[in-house]
Amino acid sequence: MEELQAVQWQDGKVLVLDQKKLPHELVLLSISDYKNVINAIKNLNVRGAPAIGIAAAYGVVLAVWSLGDSDRPAFLQLANQAINDIKKSRPTAKNLFWALEKMRLVLTANLNRPLNEIRSALLQEAKRIHQDDIQHCQKIGEKGADLLPIRSRVLTHCNAGALATGGYGTALGMIRAAGEKGKKIRVIATETRPLLQGARLTTFELLEEGIDVTLICDSMVGVAMRQRMVDAVVVGADRIAANGDVANKIGTYSIAVLAKEHNIPFYVAAPLSSFDLSIKSGEEIPIEERQADEIRRLESEQIAPEEVKVFNPAFDVTPAEYISAIVTEKGVITPPLQENMAKMKINT
Amino acid sequence: MEELQAVQWQDGKVLVLDQKKLPHELVLLSISDYKNVINAIKNLNVRGAPAIGIAAAYGVVLAVWSLGDSDRPAFLQLANQAINDIKKSRPTAKNLFWALEKMRLVLTANLNRPLNEIRSALLQEAKRIHQDDIQHCQKIGEKGADLLPIRSRVLTHCNAGALATGGYGTALGMIRAAGEKGKKIRVIATETRPLLQGARLTTFELLEEGIDVTLICDSMVGVAMRQRMVDAVVVGADRIAANGDVANKIGTYSIAVLAKEHNIPFYVAAPLSSFDLSIKSGEEIPIEERQADEIRRLESEQIAPEEVKVFNPAFDVTPAEYISAIVTEKGVITPPLQENMAKMKINT
Repeated sequence: MEELQAVQWQDGKVLVLDQKKLPHELVLLSISDYKNVINAIKNLNVRGAPAIGIAAAYGVVLAVWSLGDSDRPAFLQLANQAINDIKKSRPTAKNLFWALEKMRLVLTANLNRPLNEIRSALLQEAKRIHQDDIQHCQKIGEKGADLLPIRSRVLTHCNAGALATGGYGTALGMIRAAGEKGKKIRVIATETRPLLQGARLTTFELLEEGIDVTLICDSMVGVAMRQRMVDAVVVGADRIAANGDVANKIGTYSIAVLAKEHNIPFYVAAPLSSFDLSIKSGEEIPIEERQADEIRRLESEQIAPEEVKVFNPAFDVTPAEYISAIVTEKGVITPPLQENMAKMKINT
Repeated sequence: MEELQAVQWQDGKVLVLDQKKLPHELVLLSISDYKNVINAIKNLNVRGAPAIGIAAAYGVVLAVWSLGDSDRPAFLQLANQAINDIKKSRPTAKNLFWALEKMRLVLTANLNRPLNEIRSALLQEAKRIHQDDIQHCQKIGEKGADLLPIRSRVLTHCNAGALATGGYGTALGMIRAAGEKGKKIRVIATETRPLLQGARLTTFELLEEGIDVTLICDSMVGVAMRQRMVDAVVVGADRIAANGDVANKIGTYSIAVLAKEHNIPFYVAAPLSSFDLSIKSGEEIPIEERQADEIRRLESEQIAPEEVKVFNPAFDVTPAEYISAIVTEKGVITPPLQENMAKMKINT
């Protein structure tokens, strides 16, 4: 099977592999209205910080794709409108805002050119964001693979794989690259409640590639570590603050604390597009709280009493002190993270 | 509504409130064959260490209930057979073996009496085990309530409530008793994957009693603690070793590590029937591993790929060093647990 592609541009349409249907069905959503890109992001048909950024960029292109070339004010108004609307789809992943800002810059730089040229420039930029992300993931994989012992059992949370990115993946990119370098990697995937991205997506991706994977519940991380079943933890990131604090899928922080308690290295794999140096610490990262029924129900199944209160943050923040290294396409950042991030001159 | 009863004896039948159907349906299983008591324990229609012990004791009575009074060898053979068979139903909870041992002692002590008197003695013993458990829970509640601040947010895992015991509960007994003493307790219940006893049972029990409860996923414990939403953790126990190590529902150990990291007291509430001083440490406690489909599936719903490997321990061991106190019907045991358990002269 070819590598899974979360998002593709094809003949004036955005094709989204519907991740809510995986692993049972491979369904491609063919989207021609940018508002449905917003819906696909909100409803998690496409998820994962880098993949959201890519979908957002293509969404801007969609907004102006079928407009004629005569009405400049309408064209520009709609392009800006799309950028502003897509920005509101989800609050936490930096890549969304990063990609939309890139699109806005291209729009501004080409403002006085013919509309068909602006359209081409926007598409070119969206494709570049997409292609760059794949390359960045491959570089992250290559640099990160060196951190993993020749034979190692790696625990990962949620899905930071091909499905979460342009392709190849960040955390799973490290695991893939280690395998390509001849290392023998076995993976423990946490199921990642409430939406089960680990159970549904990570196991699926790894089985497709023949990488050894064992599924556990989130509550089993402690016992797995205590029983020496884990040599390293690798996760992705939704936003990284200037001090090295990392927002990622809910549950990441608990795993980081457990890793520290068991002296297991805890690695974050993320492209520079996930960094947000404009904010000082993780406390300032907006954390999305999603609807209660994600926990009260599982698909059509009612689990808990209808009336029970729920606390359902979609992300948490892992303070820099718990992180052994952040792996980026430009290299591996080791502690002190704040100092070494500053040295790396990350432009965001 | 009257208090929920997990197990009852009624006119030669064992009535089991089917906990797999909760919270959606209140179904009473009426059992007249001890082999179906075994099935109910294996299939988790009845669960929770003390409740399993009670069901096991009544199961022994059932085995001889409908036998005539003439064939002494057959009667004694079947009683012993039932004890041995029920013993194999689940491996971890001490209360199962403790209750069956009590039944065996009564059988032995009454060996030469008329069969109808042996039958009565067995029933009396099973009822005593049941009634004692309710009283012990109330005492645990009363003694444990003093550990909780006047206004407190208490996190609990799995279900150590009325449904897990003869009635009243151990961990939830502490919460109930604190409420009865006028304390204002709010509860955070973890859903407790894979079988969701927190989501299904604990929220249900607490809502029935009007106790404030908020449901979270197991992966959210870290962030809840970091955001200072938790003042204390209270859990039950399936088996407690001589050194104070505690086997309890999978996920308990992770919560204990997180509690330590956040300086939150971690209490275990359990009757002395859960103590096993014959074993030195938690490493010797047999941990049941249950079938992979508990994680791959949720009810009828397939979640993960059919072929993915799974690690599914039903319990984990929390080392004594993470435990702030163990609350029993005889009093609160504080660290050093081993020394103070020895002083308490627990007879098991």
